[in-house]
Amino acid sequence: MTTNRQVRLAARPMGLPKRTDWNFTEEAVGQPADGQILVKVSHISLDPAMRGWMNEGKSYIAPVEIGAVMRAGGVGEVIASKHPGFAVGDPVGGNFGVQQYAVSDAKGVRKVDTGFAPLTTYLGVLGMPGMTAYFGLLDIGKPQAGETVVVSGATGAVGAVVCQIAKIKGCRVVGIAGGPDKCKYAIDTLHCDAAIDYKSEDVKASLKKHCPDGIHVYFDNVGGEILEACLARLALHARIIFCGAISQYNNTTPPRGPANYFSLLVNRASITGMVVFDYAARYGEAAKEMAGWIAAGKLVHKEDVVMGGIDAFPETLLKLFKGENFGKLVLAL
Amino acid sequence: MTTNRQVRLAARPMGLPKRTDWNFTEEAVGQPADGQILVKVSHISLDPAMRGWMNEGKSYIAPVEIGAVMRAGGVGEVIASKHPGFAVGDPVGGNFGVQQYAVSDAKGVRKVDTGFAPLTTYLGVLGMPGMTAYFGLLDIGKPQAGETVVVSGATGAVGAVVCQIAKIKGCRVVGIAGGPDKCKYAIDTLHCDAAIDYKSEDVKASLKKHCPDGIHVYFDNVGGEILEACLARLALHARIIFCGAISQYNNTTPPRGPANYFSLLVNRASITGMVVFDYAARYGEAAKEMAGWIAAGKLVHKEDVVMGGIDAFPETLLKLFKGENFGKLVLAL
Repeated sequence: MTTNRQVRLAARPMGLPKRTDWNFTEEAVGQPADGQILVKVSHISLDPAMRGWMNEGKSYIAPVEIGAVMRAGGVGEVIASKHPGFAVGDPVGGNFGVQQYAVSDAKGVRKVDTGFAPLTTYLGVLGMPGMTAYFGLLDIGKPQAGETVVVSGATGAVGAVVCQIAKIKGCRVVGIAGGPDKCKYAIDTLHCDAAIDYKSEDVKASLKKHCPDGIHVYFDNVGGEILEACLARLALHARIIFCGAISQYNNTTPPRGPANYFSLLVNRASITGMVVFDYAARYGEAAKEMAGWIAAGKLVHKEDVVMGGIDAFPETLLKLFKGENFGKLVLAL
Repeated sequence: MTTNRQVRLAARPMGLPKRTDWNFTEEAVGQPADGQILVKVSHISLDPAMRGWMNEGKSYIAPVEIGAVMRAGGVGEVIASKHPGFAVGDPVGGNFGVQQYAVSDAKGVRKVDTGFAPLTTYLGVLGMPGMTAYFGLLDIGKPQAGETVVVSGATGAVGAVVCQIAKIKGCRVVGIAGGPDKCKYAIDTLHCDAAIDYKSEDVKASLKKHCPDGIHVYFDNVGGEILEACLARLALHARIIFCGAISQYNNTTPPRGPANYFSLLVNRASITGMVVFDYAARYGEAAKEMAGWIAAGKLVHKEDVVMGGIDAFPETLLKLFKGENFGKLVLAL
């Protein structure tokens, strides 16, 4: 009998999740019933949104229940199938949770083409982060050639794709990231016109320097002070895509609202929240266009694959909130 | 020689404008040069936005300079004209400032039809407040029949028009106002489906009661706690029209940002700032449609005309910020 090692939510964290907020459990690997598949998970996706799923209360998705296997995207291989659409050996992506094996009814599971790109790419640029970037920027931001697009978390899984799509669309792109290495990457590899190191620069002053005509589109992954700095520099009719607020996820006090939100009125600007799941019906269209850009060398990506196995999950997740990951963070099982 | 009594900005107020923030001056009535008109102002419009114009700093319009005649909309009669488009006796509306007589190059001045509605109507429902309501609600809010529209400042010059247009469009309308008289008016005269008295009710609890399906459109005139209460009750894909924030205009500390702005993400909702001047090219279209609604008895309005003359300007303006006006506030000269 093979065992399935799992990470379950033990307690709702206050602030940064601690080791004691998790339970490690082992159970026998399940067998698929009719209509189900069994997946051996090879890589787990680590995403900032996971922190929100650990909290109680109404959100865009139900919280992970105490005692449940932690929700997570993953990729792997079908190793048993009683589903007509899947065969043993199929490489797949889906919501498999933080565990080594997943029995799934195949809802939301998709077969992926490992001939085109390695499996982990389907957790990043061809997965949720890529879809988030694509629809957030294009559908909500509606950037026009020549406009200035500012991206926070610019070298993260979402931000890096936003930067590159904005360049493809002919925009001037300013990336905000933490530290000289990420800023260099933003310029050299993502082709940002400018990069701002929020750890060493006065973001407000740097935005003034790099956005002489103001910010037309701000793709917000971080919230907090950087959101306020961007609000202070908006161009007329600016669009803010509110995708995330990683700086606020581990607050033990209520998140702070942007004190200068009056800038929205002054500049007839908007903030719009987005959740990628709303675009599920259009993932195919995005994947096709992004695959084209990848094939043409216009859309590159960087992965931060941690080799620690499932036991390294708690510490690996924290890398996101400490700004320690560089590229799409993935845990290899 | 006739004298022109004027109110000029003497100092930038801290908090509520004081009498000492104003200077009263008298000068000879000017004579129009070629291309100009001389208007005898009969009524001055008092609007919450005027408080913002008194502050220094970048905004959607230049601040009123210290020593300048206070900016204000007004209506009156042309008493001398060297402009081919205007004749003596023409009733007009425009930005005439807080003074008894205005020499104007006629930019932004429009002739009004006193046969259709009294002069003061062109400061309210057929003036800036009406245009603000019309374009803010329809262009940004895009209410659909059956949706729930919440309006703060519901019996004010803008809010009352918003409530009625939302009803015309088949929406469920919940008005928020201060005190039982205004709430009764919101129900009986504006035909709101429910009214919430923010002075005596728990707004959050009342919104829950009156908006069982959530808020689809929130027309925000007030900001502050009421904005937060509405954010907490948004429906999916809700639209917030950020028209004003009267609760915050006289703050001596920075305005507070909405601490629960995460609701925008959770509900894929938006806040969009609006400034009516952007719609100047379309005022005619709005005026025509609203005149039709007025003629059909579907759009009524209430005026709060203060008869104090120009010397009463400082105290009259304060009525807005104390919630003491009931209907469109106008000062008769």
